[in-house]
Amino acid sequence: MTQIPAETPLLDRVVTPADMKGLSDAELRRLANELRTETIAAVSETGGHLGAGLGVVELTVALHAIFETPRDKIIWDVSHQSYPHKILTGRRDRIRTLRQKDGLSGFTKRSESPYDPFGAAHSSTSISAALGFAVARDLGGQVPEGLGDAIAVIGDGAMSAGMAFEAMNNAGHLNKRMIVILNDNEMSIAPPVGALSSYLSRLYAGDPFQSFKEAAKGAVSMLPSPFQAGAKRAKEMLKGIAVGGTLFEELGFSYIGPLDGHDMSQLLPVLRTVKARADGPVLIHIVTQKGKGYAPAERASDRGHATAKFDVVSGKQKKSPSNAPSYTSVFGEELVRLAGEDSRVCAVTAAMPDGTGLQLMAERFPSRTFDVGIAEQHGVTFSAALAAGGLRPFCAMYSTFLQRGYDQVVHDVAIQRLPVRFAIDRAGLVGADGATHAGSFDVAFLSNLPGFVVMAAADEAELKHMVATAAQHDEGPIAFRYPRGEGVGVEMPAQGVPLEIGKGRMIREGGRVALLSFGARLKEVMEAAEALEARGISPTIADARFAKPLDRDLILQLARDHEALITIEEGAIGGFGSHVAQLLAEEGVFDSGLKYRSMVLPDIFIDQSSPADMYATAGLNAEDIEAKVLDVLGVERLGKRAGA
Amino acid sequence: MTQIPAETPLLDRVVTPADMKGLSDAELRRLANELRTETIAAVSETGGHLGAGLGVVELTVALHAIFETPRDKIIWDVSHQSYPHKILTGRRDRIRTLRQKDGLSGFTKRSESPYDPFGAAHSSTSISAALGFAVARDLGGQVPEGLGDAIAVIGDGAMSAGMAFEAMNNAGHLNKRMIVILNDNEMSIAPPVGALSSYLSRLYAGDPFQSFKEAAKGAVSMLPSPFQAGAKRAKEMLKGIAVGGTLFEELGFSYIGPLDGHDMSQLLPVLRTVKARADGPVLIHIVTQKGKGYAPAERASDRGHATAKFDVVSGKQKKSPSNAPSYTSVFGEELVRLAGEDSRVCAVTAAMPDGTGLQLMAERFPSRTFDVGIAEQHGVTFSAALAAGGLRPFCAMYSTFLQRGYDQVVHDVAIQRLPVRFAIDRAGLVGADGATHAGSFDVAFLSNLPGFVVMAAADEAELKHMVATAAQHDEGPIAFRYPRGEGVGVEMPAQGVPLEIGKGRMIREGGRVALLSFGARLKEVMEAAEALEARGISPTIADARFAKPLDRDLILQLARDHEALITIEEGAIGGFGSHVAQLLAEEGVFDSGLKYRSMVLPDIFIDQSSPADMYATAGLNAEDIEAKVLDVLGVERLGKRAGA
Repeated sequence: MTQIPAETPLLDRVVTPADMKGLSDAELRRLANELRTETIAAVSETGGHLGAGLGVVELTVALHAIFETPRDKIIWDVSHQSYPHKILTGRRDRIRTLRQKDGLSGFTKRSESPYDPFGAAHSSTSISAALGFAVARDLGGQVPEGLGDAIAVIGDGAMSAGMAFEAMNNAGHLNKRMIVILNDNEMSIAPPVGALSSYLSRLYAGDPFQSFKEAAKGAVSMLPSPFQAGAKRAKEMLKGIAVGGTLFEELGFSYIGPLDGHDMSQLLPVLRTVKARADGPVLIHIVTQKGKGYAPAERASDRGHATAKFDVVSGKQKKSPSNAPSYTSVFGEELVRLAGEDSRVCAVTAAMPDGTGLQLMAERFPSRTFDVGIAEQHGVTFSAALAAGGLRPFCAMYSTFLQRGYDQVVHDVAIQRLPVRFAIDRAGLVGADGATHAGSFDVAFLSNLPGFVVMAAADEAELKHMVATAAQHDEGPIAFRYPRGEGVGVEMPAQGVPLEIGKGRMIREGGRVALLSFGARLKEVMEAAEALEARGISPTIADARFAKPLDRDLILQLARDHEALITIEEGAIGGFGSHVAQLLAEEGVFDSGLKYRSMVLPDIFIDQSSPADMYATAGLNAEDIEAKVLDVLGVERLGKRAGA
Repeated sequence: MTQIPAETPLLDRVVTPADMKGLSDAELRRLANELRTETIAAVSETGGHLGAGLGVVELTVALHAIFETPRDKIIWDVSHQSYPHKILTGRRDRIRTLRQKDGLSGFTKRSESPYDPFGAAHSSTSISAALGFAVARDLGGQVPEGLGDAIAVIGDGAMSAGMAFEAMNNAGHLNKRMIVILNDNEMSIAPPVGALSSYLSRLYAGDPFQSFKEAAKGAVSMLPSPFQAGAKRAKEMLKGIAVGGTLFEELGFSYIGPLDGHDMSQLLPVLRTVKARADGPVLIHIVTQKGKGYAPAERASDRGHATAKFDVVSGKQKKSPSNAPSYTSVFGEELVRLAGEDSRVCAVTAAMPDGTGLQLMAERFPSRTFDVGIAEQHGVTFSAALAAGGLRPFCAMYSTFLQRGYDQVVHDVAIQRLPVRFAIDRAGLVGADGATHAGSFDVAFLSNLPGFVVMAAADEAELKHMVATAAQHDEGPIAFRYPRGEGVGVEMPAQGVPLEIGKGRMIREGGRVALLSFGARLKEVMEAAEALEARGISPTIADARFAKPLDRDLILQLARDHEALITIEEGAIGGFGSHVAQLLAEEGVFDSGLKYRSMVLPDIFIDQSSPADMYATAGLNAEDIEAKVLDVLGVERLGKRAGA
């Protein structure tokens, strides 16, 4: 592997931000350069979110140089831009364990460092968090690190989410001293959409940095010096600096900007001034470049948002080629096929056209593909109205982000029985993104909604059929979930064929124990069955396909014909297994005894690792299923798997 | 009962909006007056939301006179202001059944009328819905009524929710023809808070209606006539009408206003002009008075938001006095007591200080009480940060509204294990507000979150103890739920005493069957037990108190010592009973047989009625519990309850 030769003499002296306090502005500039080099080198070895961190290298240095962390709270929104922050705050020695098992999280995390006062991974929470810290400070809250300034760093994409607006609205009203840094790189993961984005572009389109820089310097030097006496005037002055920002001013913030976020000679004096003078909420608008300073990232369409390990010189990613198509692409392609046949088919994504596979739909049918921005609440209700207007909308969201639109799923979709098709990607455990991105709860929070149909795909062919099933289901809401990553390599049908609603399928008939799988654990179930065969146990295996409505006949038959029935799913308690248990209880199956078990995600948040390893922690891999069967049937395990 | 003598000759001729088409502007004015009289008379007989409807009488008449409903879609946000709309759209003959069993819903409802294209009850969904209809129209969607203009009517309080901002942002970007009417009455239920509210006040503070009226007339008359040719210019003209509205303009809307929403001579020409000329999203800002035209409502602090039946002349409400304190007040008072002892105790409400009982806290400890506006997402994360800042926040929300902050509960509270105290009011079925306000899902969606403590109060004394329990629980998040309305009349302790986490309580020891209650169905369980005694069956009764962590010892003991175990709760599947079933399965209790049943809310949305009647529909009243016991034990019921 080629390494960019990099000496980092200044960075080598900075273990925590306290070590930066004596540095001159020129040294801080050099430190930023070294930090950029180190960030690139680290991510080349670990993979991860690169572009966002490179965009805030200067900001990271400037904030830690000027503010007193961890007493002052820097809250990184989403926090995939926090790698440089981690390097500066005592974690450089572990930075090459990023996103790996037992390594550093790819996001900020309270349990990882006192310099991470508030963890994140979902977008747009930082202003709420900063406001909470500011209020706690003013009410005399006591925490070990102390409570000083509260600083939210939020991207322009994240700012478009309603939650950020709610927080701005509340912060403008409470008028506490706090700082919001709007990191405007015209990108979230995809380029941001929406009117706010256009507004921000207009703010700096007319005003080149060069001229503003001088103006800002002049304005800053004019600030009144006695803070106490001049508080009100200082605020007016800060407002006066603004070349735009009416929208934020109207919400009660003092607006400063736009600044060039890569120019320390702008960042440092403005942050020093704000630190000295702010007496209410201040928004500092900086313009940065995602992937800044690393040419391969700057050239990429997503500006190097997330990457596998890569070669530093060429930028080439070292990803192993896969044989099976990804679930995401299977969904995207089947949807495009259906859209070609039916002009009512349309699609909604909340700022994840690539991640959800809708990019293909957007290319082929742009007028029927809607990227609503980071706005799951709106996206769900918008989809409901598309359905009410006679269309066949697919609302494609990751399981974990659908949580953002839960009330809209209940109130606008389920209660009105509108046929929105929910394509739920990243169901179950997702790997390197860890606990915050796990899709653990969707089956539970959807399956108790009256009128909902809830499916999970056992493999990529099943997914194809479920997309087709959803397309033609006009009777009410329908959801299908599928995991992150590649399929299992089954033969693919030419096109999806609608399934009968509420009917599972028998995979193999056996005896004593029935394994009833819901979703993509089926492969593990089959492996477990093979291992059990070697012990003379031949389990029946069924794929439930539906958590709602349940295939009552199939389930009651399995219960009748077997000594034991075990459900397996990639979700938390309250989902498929709970619905099966309710059916069995209500039908009196437990009255006379049934060895029933429900294998679900355990009652812990599981940290990042490979999905397989996370499922091992969860106890949901083939060997766990095998062990469960042996345990339930009272068969001794000894000798089978040494050390297991 | 005193009736205001009211002749309604014009209204008598209007069965549907089609009957309004020939009316002159003067007749429309008279029609509005008659509609106001009829609205007051109807609500005096039924109770319900009065003030909001009285504020939009003129708007309702103007919209239906000018637009072609139901082809054009009027979407009333929240829709508690829709009573006048219901009277004008074929439902006058049933208006005195409002909010009653088998009567009209208190909200718009798709299944009730084609004039209700999109139901609502929770706030801030209307712009998303209108945008969806506008898009569906432009994509050729087919619905029986046709698809014309899409018009959202949204209050200033509802506009402050993030979801409305998300929709505005998306609508400004898509640039479809659609109309948002911002109904600014400076009230949601409580007076609105937040920076947006101040902004709106500034918009019309400096510009009296009288002068604007003339200006608007002039501007409208200057509009270019050939719509096609002048589309761009027309848009500029509409913008030119604005005396403010920069914030909305920045989001891509043409802003018109503010208008006097009670002055038909402003409403009619502006709406006619917009109908003729709009070629993109338009926001019309009207200023109205909640409770307009009915003196007792105008005088009330909440402008007659919701009312019981009342005397039309005096305005005096006919509410039967209650003996037991409401759960809401028990919570509010115990919280104030705790706040008096502990300066870390603070409270957060999302625009419901009265409904949640936090008004008392706001009066006694204003600096520690935060009304964040209709902003549950922000409210939850803000609470999480207050906890991270060393405070002891109580986040008080209705069960149904907490759904709005679900992802924040998962991502910011649970994953970070922050000790936010969730006070969940209106748990279970709530009566006249119907299915949209039912608190059915909170136990399910909270109890599968690692580290959460989830309690339900069996009565008002238990609630008091649970408030105290939550206050001193610093180890992680904790929630307690309690129903709408008055307690059961138990003796009240002087103050709450913290409960042991995860321990239930035995209520009475009996034999054969154990009834394990979670929450306020305990009273019904006790009644069922009394009825069963008459048949020689003496059930054991326990109050679980905790859905998480479960009282394993208690539950396993109940299972061991009884032929049957039945759980009862006021929630949907996936909650308490599902967790009990998981425990019993995992412990092998079902292996050898146990008559286990879980009584939960059924798989239907239950329409409004009295709570008791709704619970009868749900099958969760005393007689249902009795019947379940008899059924499980195989005892014949005949003769006991004639006709049952």
